[in-house]
Amino acid sequence: MTKAITSALNVGELAAGQVLSVPLFTFKGTDNRAPTVYVQANVHGAEVQGNAVIYQLMTLLENCHVLGDIVFAPLANPLGINQKSGEFTLGRFDPITGVNWNREYLDHKIDIAAWYKQHQDLPNDELIKSFKATLTEACHTKLQQPWGITTGHRLAVNLQSLAHSADIVLDLHTGPKSCKHLYCPEYDMDSAKFFSIPYSLIIPNSFGGAMDEAAFCPWWQLTEYAASQGRHFDVPVAAFTLELASQERIDMADALVDAKGIMAYLSHRGVIQEAVQPAKMPRYACYLKDYKKFHAPQSGMVEYCAKVGEPLLAGNTLVNILRLDLYGSDKACTSLSLDKDCVPILHFASASVHQGTELYKVMTNVFEFPC
Amino acid sequence: MTKAITSALNVGELAAGQVLSVPLFTFKGTDNRAPTVYVQANVHGAEVQGNAVIYQLMTLLENCHVLGDIVFAPLANPLGINQKSGEFTLGRFDPITGVNWNREYLDHKIDIAAWYKQHQDLPNDELIKSFKATLTEACHTKLQQPWGITTGHRLAVNLQSLAHSADIVLDLHTGPKSCKHLYCPEYDMDSAKFFSIPYSLIIPNSFGGAMDEAAFCPWWQLTEYAASQGRHFDVPVAAFTLELASQERIDMADALVDAKGIMAYLSHRGVIQEAVQPAKMPRYACYLKDYKKFHAPQSGMVEYCAKVGEPLLAGNTLVNILRLDLYGSDKACTSLSLDKDCVPILHFASASVHQGTELYKVMTNVFEFPC
Amino acid sequence: MTKAITSALNVGELAAGQVLSVPLFTFKGTDNRAPTVYVQANVHGAEVQGNAVIYQLMTLLENCHVLGDIVFAPLANPLGINQKSGEFTLGRFDPITGVNWNREYLDHKIDIAAWYKQHQDLPNDELIKSFKATLTEACHTKLQQPWGITTGHRLAVNLQSLAHSADIVLDLHTGPKSCKHLYCPEYDMDSAKFFSIPYSLIIPNSFGGAMDEAAFCPWWQLTEYAASQGRHFDVPVAAFTLELASQERIDMADALVDAKGIMAYLSHRGVIQEAVQPAKMPRYACYLKDYKKFHAPQSGMVEYCAKVGEPLLAGNTLVNILRLDLYGSDKACTSLSLDKDCVPILHFASASVHQGTELYKVMTNVFEFPC
Amino acid sequence: MTKAITSALNVGELAAGQVLSVPLFTFKGTDNRAPTVYVQANVHGAEVQGNAVIYQLMTLLENCHVLGDIVFAPLANPLGINQKSGEFTLGRFDPITGVNWNREYLDHKIDIAAWYKQHQDLPNDELIKSFKATLTEACHTKLQQPWGITTGHRLAVNLQSLAHSADIVLDLHTGPKSCKHLYCPEYDMDSAKFFSIPYSLIIPNSFGGAMDEAAFCPWWQLTEYAASQGRHFDVPVAAFTLELASQERIDMADALVDAKGIMAYLSHRGVIQEAVQPAKMPRYACYLKDYKKFHAPQSGMVEYCAKVGEPLLAGNTLVNILRLDLYGSDKACTSLSLDKDCVPILHFASASVHQGTELYKVMTNVFEFPC
Repeated sequence: MTKAITSALNVGELAAGQVLSVPLFTFKGTDNRAPTVYVQANVHGAEVQGNAVIYQLMTLLENCHVLGDIVFAPLANPLGINQKSGEFTLGRFDPITGVNWNREYLDHKIDIAAWYKQHQDLPNDELIKSFKATLTEACHTKLQQPWGITTGHRLAVNLQSLAHSADIVLDLHTGPKSCKHLYCPEYDMDSAKFFSIPYSLIIPNSFGGAMDEAAFCPWWQLTEYAASQGRHFDVPVAAFTLELASQERIDMADALVDAKGIMAYLSHRGVIQEAVQPAKMPRYACYLKDYKKFHAPQSGMVEYCAKVGEPLLAGNTLVNILRLDLYGSDKACTSLSLDKDCVPILHFASASVHQGTELYKVMTNVFEFPC
Repeated sequence: MTKAITSALNVGELAAGQVLSVPLFTFKGTDNRAPTVYVQANVHGAEVQGNAVIYQLMTLLENCHVLGDIVFAPLANPLGINQKSGEFTLGRFDPITGVNWNREYLDHKIDIAAWYKQHQDLPNDELIKSFKATLTEACHTKLQQPWGITTGHRLAVNLQSLAHSADIVLDLHTGPKSCKHLYCPEYDMDSAKFFSIPYSLIIPNSFGGAMDEAAFCPWWQLTEYAASQGRHFDVPVAAFTLELASQERIDMADALVDAKGIMAYLSHRGVIQEAVQPAKMPRYACYLKDYKKFHAPQSGMVEYCAKVGEPLLAGNTLVNILRLDLYGSDKACTSLSLDKDCVPILHFASASVHQGTELYKVMTNVFEFPC
Repeated sequence: MTKAITSALNVGELAAGQVLSVPLFTFKGTDNRAPTVYVQANVHGAEVQGNAVIYQLMTLLENCHVLGDIVFAPLANPLGINQKSGEFTLGRFDPITGVNWNREYLDHKIDIAAWYKQHQDLPNDELIKSFKATLTEACHTKLQQPWGITTGHRLAVNLQSLAHSADIVLDLHTGPKSCKHLYCPEYDMDSAKFFSIPYSLIIPNSFGGAMDEAAFCPWWQLTEYAASQGRHFDVPVAAFTLELASQERIDMADALVDAKGIMAYLSHRGVIQEAVQPAKMPRYACYLKDYKKFHAPQSGMVEYCAKVGEPLLAGNTLVNILRLDLYGSDKACTSLSLDKDCVPILHFASASVHQGTELYKVMTNVFEFPC
Repeated sequence: MTKAITSALNVGELAAGQVLSVPLFTFKGTDNRAPTVYVQANVHGAEVQGNAVIYQLMTLLENCHVLGDIVFAPLANPLGINQKSGEFTLGRFDPITGVNWNREYLDHKIDIAAWYKQHQDLPNDELIKSFKATLTEACHTKLQQPWGITTGHRLAVNLQSLAHSADIVLDLHTGPKSCKHLYCPEYDMDSAKFFSIPYSLIIPNSFGGAMDEAAFCPWWQLTEYAASQGRHFDVPVAAFTLELASQERIDMADALVDAKGIMAYLSHRGVIQEAVQPAKMPRYACYLKDYKKFHAPQSGMVEYCAKVGEPLLAGNTLVNILRLDLYGSDKACTSLSLDKDCVPILHFASASVHQGTELYKVMTNVFEFPC
């Protein structure tokens, strides 16, 4: 039986003096050639199910032969998780500045050409080690800025520093009211078939601010640049964001399903010795450019008619919008639909919306992954 | 076909100048001896389903022969409904003061003995009319306070003033995550069997601050006092709070079910000419003293295991509480249960709780209404 | 030199697992016949100046001969102090329930007649000791409720339990934009002349929910009841709320002024051996019934013309209210005044108000304390 | 006497059905060759003083001979202004998404080279007119997106559309606790000497998301590109952000001072016929790269020692940070200073901060404008 080693990461302090710290649990691997893993959950305060998945994963790993080091950071946003406003958790953004906690990671903006020129004589393993050091050092420099850094940067860059030391990075999120979906970089599409997740978004090589992008973008850029110089190797780092259904929900049985999907991926990558088969299930995807946000064209009370995770034909009702103040007119109840086929992936959490609220995110031009 | 007459009630104005107004829809009855009705919804901003029920009710009434006047006030809290904080509606209390919008109604504190002494020579209908005038006038006096009144009082007492002009008052709410239940005054228990609501709370004759109590308490007190003086009549006003399942939810089909339940009650009371039968279903109740709040004895992430509306035996799991920071100890996952049988009626909306958060409200000593 | 002994009071735990604790600093007295003292600050999150006063007080005490035990509880609301919403601290009420943190203390509702009957044979010091035990035990019983208690009750009753063990209780608050003022029970008016506070509110013997009332009301009731039975003694417990000017403000120099005022009171009471004279300054008061809240009769942008702490004659401008949306009409800028002389004590913190917002609190029928 | 013409701009609708509209006041000019002006205020909800300045400006203009059309949009954010959370106005960002209301303007990203190539044969006035049409049309296209746009974009782009029709754009803001300062594009530095504002930030030609940049950046880019092609003309549009001291403050007398400063600028530009002289006062500036944010290196209660608008020498105390929980250690009270001379321009609004909170913004390398 393998036991996790417990530690903690200091990520700030609150006005009344409390230290903000993230609990860390490390499973030491027995083979230092095996890939290393970093898994975090709950960076958005209301997105708690990742903690349950980490709980199930750690329970499973206790009975495994772990080859590569695995670090778990559940409860990764100790400020956001405790931030209530009314009954719900207001943990999506810094309550002072409004900045999304998930948009505070460091954009390295490395001059890849210059870096490569300087290090091109290194063999592959040294090149990778050196690039990893460059990324980690940039995080440390950011944390030591003489004029200080924001609360959000301190949290994010501390986590990012941990992530950069791993070969595999998993960031566990949820949607508002959502089906499960995976953010998967285009170069790594084959990995999507290991997770127990029916829908994947295929994302390009550009930094949008999230942890997965912070983790893989520099490596993808390096790999592409090296290839342009005639040197070919696989992108050395894999990073995914898993959206594990809806926020404000803990479901231990469903967490086990997702833990097993992650185990199948870790098994495939040689992080654990045991062979774990992925779930047999159809898996679908679309490119990020085909992932559409539908904003409320009018305000009102919303009946969400389209189910997340189920295909919706063009013209079928997406929502009904009630406007009781207009009762007696033809605007008292309005049905809205889209003019193309889609799969609704998530919808807004509340049943009342202002004009312009993001009502649904839907996949269009969906295709099935070959098994 | 009967059409609603549209008007509006001014209940305040916002900093930037916008008028706060509540839309009113009136169905004029044809028989001035029939009871009159006042129905409001959405005094708590996130509790939107009552609007859908009013929509369905008005649609049904358009094809009815309406005998008594019926006034509908949907969207009854124009400040609270629009108050977002994050994705959810923060409409339970005044965002400035924290005061629950549903605790701002006027407590008349009438000296019933003195009032009765002064009016006892009036025949019943005159006595009732005069008492009604007393209540309404007290509302107007409150609204005209020389030093002004709070935003919440202005809203509540304006609505209350409308309510006092009716013989039947229905206040449509929801719980957080909740099954349907009815707040029913003890003197009016027989009415519970008309609504499509499986659980009733039998409430005593004391003002707790809510609209239903504001509407019926003075009448109940008058009735009891008169009886103590040897004069017997039924409590002239009926008032109920209907909790129509969960907040942040619009379901038009379910709204029709509840609209029909209300129609059955209105039919029984002679407000409409049509005969509408109540739904055949078992109905249960408990006394308010047996309605228990269970507060989280510890903090953490919560899996709500007990389903609302379904009996739970003593010792069966109510919730599991996850504490990932304590992984490795025996406190990482804790199951909690109660030591007596109950029916969980509602639970907290969020899956993470501080110590002391109200986790569940449960009925104990539940009994079935005779059909 | 006397050093404070450091400890901590556990008052709850947050969703992500952090313990809520209040730091305690105790100065042990050398004479167990001297009165004991409890001082807390910052129960409302934005009212921080009391911490600075405690800092200065403790610094002064280090060079004093302390006779009676003194316990300081700064930062007394570890949840509320850290609760931001935008740039300001949203620490006036529980963000989940809206309940004012300062209205969660236990209302003992002791049957004084019954209690006295049972204990009347005790000599004074035993009677007092026994009553103190009764109050403390009631707090412990509340904290051990089998169905749990709210987050706010857990905090407040824990603090109250500390307060009940002291003979003198000081609760340090501030107003929104405010001059200094003191809440002083009527039986203890003479004490007002020791503090460096120009205005006092004379409050009656009824529990409104605040700490000072929780501390002195039961004792006042006991004293009055005993007197009605022919036994006379002074109210054994003194309790005051000090409102130390405006929230969201730390001023170390001004904190020293208030610390010296408190030292003068402690010196007078024999808590310290040193003789400290109160500041020479005029001091004024009014009865609570003459303390008036003025609510905004209309909404708009507010210029606060009347200075807090300075007498305002009837008819002089209190505020100007701007309504740019009505520019061109005679309502674009409105001056408001009161029809009686007053001293404005505090005004609303924001320059924009909804209709009904509490604009000013003013003292009327102000009288000067004899020196 | 010139009277303003009243109209309104619809910018959205709220959940309960209320229309969001911005009041507009237009002074029609008598000379269509004179520059036209657009002035808005209160895009951030708590920054109300600009409304008072507009009030004073309109009052002054009523007695002027207005040559160029002037449009005023006070109360420009009808959602944000009414958004309270506690006593203060939480109007800095969309309460649902956290997005800063002042970062929602459209970044045109015009391919200037291509546009210029297509229009280079036009004479200057036609070129300008055509470019203006391009900008306005892009706003209209954004507003008509088939999948809808966010609440914030709808507001901002509607306002921007008005701004693009003017030659002079003034956006009236305030800081949190702040002295007056002006954001001034580098090409337009000479204009800073007309306003009654002691400090100017000289900003470069890049879009950071604010209204002033949205208004002048495309024009600056066009002017520079044309110059690179050998055609020289002045940047046709002037745009400034005026930071009028602190938020949550209405001061009518001070508003008149700023109104007169704006009148001096309008007079200089020939928008009004009257000659208005700028105030005689020293004026200072620094480049945006020398405008520094100082983040709290630790958390605690803050005494803001450095006054805004007054030079602070290196090593002098900026703030004292109190940590009562650490009383007894050398960290109970910490003085912080900077290691270079500066002028503090603004500081955080609250007296308690988490680690990382932006404490101060200071100008370094400050220089005086020649008179």
